[in-house]
Amino acid sequence: MNNLFINSVEVTGGFWKKYQKITVENIIPYQEKAIKDQIEGIEPSHAVDNFINAGKKLAGAKDYADFYGMVFQDSDVAKWLEAASFSLAKYPDEKLSARIDELVELVSKAQESDGYLDTYFTLKRPDQKWKNLHDAHELYCAGHFIEAGVAHYEVTGKTNLFKIVCKLADCIYEHFITQKHEGYPGHPEIELALLKLARSTGNAKYAELAKHFIDVRGVDPEFYNKEMQSRSWNVWGSESVNPSYHQCHKPVREQTTAEGHAVRAGYLFTAMADLAFETKDTELFAACKRLWQNITQKRMYVTGGIGSTNQGEAFTVDYDLPNDTTYSETCAAISLMMFARQMLRNEKLGEYGDIMEQALYNTVLAGMQLDGRRFFYVNPLEAVPGISGVAVTHRHDLPERPGWYGCACCPPNVARTISDIADYAWQLDGSTLFCVLFIDNKLELPDYGIKITEKTEYPYDGRITFELEKADSANAGSAAAVETLAVRLPHWAKGAKWQAECGVRVKDGFIYFDLSKLNGATTAKQAAKLAIEIDLHLEPRKIWCNSSVPANSGKVCFAFGPLIYCAEEADNGKLLDLFVQRNAIPVVQPFAEELGGIRKMQVAAVRALHKGGALYFEDEPQLEKAEMTLIPYYAWANRGLNQMRVWLPQC
Amino acid sequence: MNNLFINSVEVTGGFWKKYQKITVENIIPYQEKAIKDQIEGIEPSHAVDNFINAGKKLAGAKDYADFYGMVFQDSDVAKWLEAASFSLAKYPDEKLSARIDELVELVSKAQESDGYLDTYFTLKRPDQKWKNLHDAHELYCAGHFIEAGVAHYEVTGKTNLFKIVCKLADCIYEHFITQKHEGYPGHPEIELALLKLARSTGNAKYAELAKHFIDVRGVDPEFYNKEMQSRSWNVWGSESVNPSYHQCHKPVREQTTAEGHAVRAGYLFTAMADLAFETKDTELFAACKRLWQNITQKRMYVTGGIGSTNQGEAFTVDYDLPNDTTYSETCAAISLMMFARQMLRNEKLGEYGDIMEQALYNTVLAGMQLDGRRFFYVNPLEAVPGISGVAVTHRHDLPERPGWYGCACCPPNVARTISDIADYAWQLDGSTLFCVLFIDNKLELPDYGIKITEKTEYPYDGRITFELEKADSANAGSAAAVETLAVRLPHWAKGAKWQAECGVRVKDGFIYFDLSKLNGATTAKQAAKLAIEIDLHLEPRKIWCNSSVPANSGKVCFAFGPLIYCAEEADNGKLLDLFVQRNAIPVVQPFAEELGGIRKMQVAAVRALHKGGALYFEDEPQLEKAEMTLIPYYAWANRGLNQMRVWLPQC
Repeated sequence: MNNLFINSVEVTGGFWKKYQKITVENIIPYQEKAIKDQIEGIEPSHAVDNFINAGKKLAGAKDYADFYGMVFQDSDVAKWLEAASFSLAKYPDEKLSARIDELVELVSKAQESDGYLDTYFTLKRPDQKWKNLHDAHELYCAGHFIEAGVAHYEVTGKTNLFKIVCKLADCIYEHFITQKHEGYPGHPEIELALLKLARSTGNAKYAELAKHFIDVRGVDPEFYNKEMQSRSWNVWGSESVNPSYHQCHKPVREQTTAEGHAVRAGYLFTAMADLAFETKDTELFAACKRLWQNITQKRMYVTGGIGSTNQGEAFTVDYDLPNDTTYSETCAAISLMMFARQMLRNEKLGEYGDIMEQALYNTVLAGMQLDGRRFFYVNPLEAVPGISGVAVTHRHDLPERPGWYGCACCPPNVARTISDIADYAWQLDGSTLFCVLFIDNKLELPDYGIKITEKTEYPYDGRITFELEKADSANAGSAAAVETLAVRLPHWAKGAKWQAECGVRVKDGFIYFDLSKLNGATTAKQAAKLAIEIDLHLEPRKIWCNSSVPANSGKVCFAFGPLIYCAEEADNGKLLDLFVQRNAIPVVQPFAEELGGIRKMQVAAVRALHKGGALYFEDEPQLEKAEMTLIPYYAWANRGLNQMRVWLPQC
Repeated sequence: MNNLFINSVEVTGGFWKKYQKITVENIIPYQEKAIKDQIEGIEPSHAVDNFINAGKKLAGAKDYADFYGMVFQDSDVAKWLEAASFSLAKYPDEKLSARIDELVELVSKAQESDGYLDTYFTLKRPDQKWKNLHDAHELYCAGHFIEAGVAHYEVTGKTNLFKIVCKLADCIYEHFITQKHEGYPGHPEIELALLKLARSTGNAKYAELAKHFIDVRGVDPEFYNKEMQSRSWNVWGSESVNPSYHQCHKPVREQTTAEGHAVRAGYLFTAMADLAFETKDTELFAACKRLWQNITQKRMYVTGGIGSTNQGEAFTVDYDLPNDTTYSETCAAISLMMFARQMLRNEKLGEYGDIMEQALYNTVLAGMQLDGRRFFYVNPLEAVPGISGVAVTHRHDLPERPGWYGCACCPPNVARTISDIADYAWQLDGSTLFCVLFIDNKLELPDYGIKITEKTEYPYDGRITFELEKADSANAGSAAAVETLAVRLPHWAKGAKWQAECGVRVKDGFIYFDLSKLNGATTAKQAAKLAIEIDLHLEPRKIWCNSSVPANSGKVCFAFGPLIYCAEEADNGKLLDLFVQRNAIPVVQPFAEELGGIRKMQVAAVRALHKGGALYFEDEPQLEKAEMTLIPYYAWANRGLNQMRVWLPQC
């Protein structure tokens, strides 16, 4: 079971209730229309049409249209199916469920008799299957379908999509394991999906296939070059092969730095960490740990974004973290959350949760307009209208979220992440239940004999209460019971306090609460409940950056809990001549209605006053005292075109 | 006569004597070996070989080799001929002169009977002449040959090369004017060369041809697209046409912003300003002025560099001036010097000279290692080894000068500029002689009845003395006499003082000294001389940048006279945690022997002390008082790989 918590957690209020509502009410319906080409004024995606046409072709009809869109267009449908399936867990909707089944029916008709499923090849190049692993995204799309199938099955219990994806996975197994076809996915994704499928089915062959793809990767760094020479076509005209772009410059166990396309890297590392856990492969875990450290200690933005350049949407080199020309793709931040989740399964360090929420509350959420209608793919930490989105080096760093893209990878990725937030928030390891993210929710695990009510206004308030009860279950008090609740203690929560009538110890970024009292209780009321109160004592904080990062030299940024703050022109006027006073103590304001409900931050600053418009001048600009107002980074670019900065010069 | 001063000026000491010596003794001989493939260990250029082979082919021989190198390889030979010719003016060298003549002989044999000269086409595509103006650089190479021919003729009086280039220009005239072939140069250069040829020959048809190329440019912005569709080949595989890259997005008189490839733009604008002067075309001059202002007020680095991005080696948008990923090509700074020189002919503003020397003393000189053996094409204002030259976005911004390039445009461009420094330093307009750059030199203009001895240690000392004498000439005292000496008063020389026993007035950045006393003198000794003493009162200065430039927000830079200073790791240790104290008063030190003789600058700073290697941290770094040592920007990267910064954060 992969999605244990999606079925057992109900988000009951606070910050995430709002986001789940937006996801269910706006994002999922909007994206459904997008893949079905029902939105006026935007270019049709043909994503669902491709399945209809592939189905027609396979049925022998003549009136099918050609494939249309990006080579990985199928994955939009898969990601939507996954997000929509997740949403059904706690937002049951019969009509949506029926529409999912209709779409699954279309997908089933587009599946070939041997299980093969990819409308690009079925429609366009039926004789070229598996011949362009480098760029054609067949295994990538298959991976997303497998994820969708697992989610749909685990949430709804239905097997219609699940059977399709098992058959698809069998087809791939047959080809790559039984028939020993060479190669591995150009865009890693299926590895992590197959590991989920293995857990969901209990069938080890899927884990074997995942392990195979991980093991052969990079053993022959020239594989893609050879593959290219053996075929006469490419997806995108002329192609060139750069092994590190595809993380195949070395066998994965020998890799020491995060290289290449950031999303591919993140998905690969996630699967590696998952496999390391499942197979107790310490060598593989050591590689994951090196890569994790390289990312988080040298190649990650303070917003949890990764991938410094649009050239290949990729990592560059250590400490190269430009704020204005970054790529920092929304999907890459999601992949870092996934990687963190798997690392935490291997090693109980709060750090993994810290980074997970750093990526989530900053880059992932910034990827979406507050109303869920527009999305950023690229998440700059500095935006200056007139340059951002305009200069050739900044074209990808837009200062406002555009509408739906032809290449629509990020929006459905955000949707499935928010829908599945419970599975990031909680993790169960043996008899210890880990609370990784703080969400106002009710968790009921009858098989484990526990019910938890967690109340919090986090991330704007650090007070979190847990009310634990024994759940009515045959297992209550048995070996399967949860014996310990481990609540993450963020590294920044220096003043955190907690209170509970039970044994407590702190280790490696978690507070471990001993639940034996609860479990050992009779049915008598007095002991059947346990209350835990935690106050993370949120205070606005200043963050400095290692001086090896040229872009942040002399600058500071601000945080409150997991939220990184930024300054916008809307609150401050022209930002580029505002400097923070070095000894300023930032103050967080009460809740404001604005921007969907946020708490702003005030900080003492100075404004340099320039006279005239000269490019260079020698009269020292006068400094005037000023107050800067900061908002959470995730809420930027919701008030029209304006300047934004995360890292602020000091004075 | 274009090169009036090269023949009449002798650089007698100080800063420029050293540079001319390096040029004559090192650069010109080294570059001669490079074009003749006589340097071991570097890839052969085949530049001279191409002429030998084209000559063989034209003579009907069968044993010629194919063309080799960049499509504009011929221009390396032309630029070397120009630089070497200039050097002969004051450094006569019979052997060099003979070798020039031998090379001219090879060029003459490579010229076709109708005057056509371009070895790429003669050897490789004889039936495709003039069919790829977009990229094939025929007119560009022709322009450089014409410049070389004019220089060689005006300096030496010899006509061997001059006749070749007149015949070449006649061939182009025949084709584009008489036969009305459509089109204009993809890389502007020939326009400014033809205007020189018109002055040198007195033949107006060359000016007519220059005017034609300027007038038709951009009238049909689609011209290059049409041209591309009408041929079946390209120089560089697939090509795409971007009119603004080639400055043909609009007719030149309608252009308001500097767009596209910076060197192309600079050469075009130079020709436009020259033509505007020669033809009294006020509309064209107004366009030049708009473009000048756009460059210098919104798109120019403080080092006089232009072209913010390597993508197209081009201008981007207003205020986009990144220090670390810039292009700022050495050749582009030279083109800005040329543009300034022509603007000054139109309008007597000291500003043009100020910008000319800003580009010269900073970017142009930084383009060259102090010993003249290695060159930068790209001149970043911030270099951080590990990122610069390594990260995909910084590959072009090298932290050390490499050896000779396959594409060798910049080194010979620097050589010809230094050789011809006298023609930048002086300008004659009617009876007013303008001293634009301050050079320790003797100027003798017998036809204008004047001899000047200028002594100075500029740019490291602001004292300049001029001793003026009547020259022995039939014209002395006649209408042709120089009546006024106008000495540029740099905008930063606020404390400048001067002393002269003659009438003096200051206007628009020049000090005008009335020489009537000198001219009106009898032969009696007492009046035949005039002494002028100027002290520009050099003091270290701080420069701030318009806050519309994101890269320099919160930063300051330092200057002394025309020299922009920078900090290097060699003097300061790790630079990125050093911040200048806001109220620091910089102090310039006495001459140091180091780095070819410079004066260093000291400025009070602080160093942020970090513990540990965390990427982000929340313990405020302690600040420790520190002293920063700065060196002139032109001298950077002469002490091994190390960090460098021009713009420094303040504290």
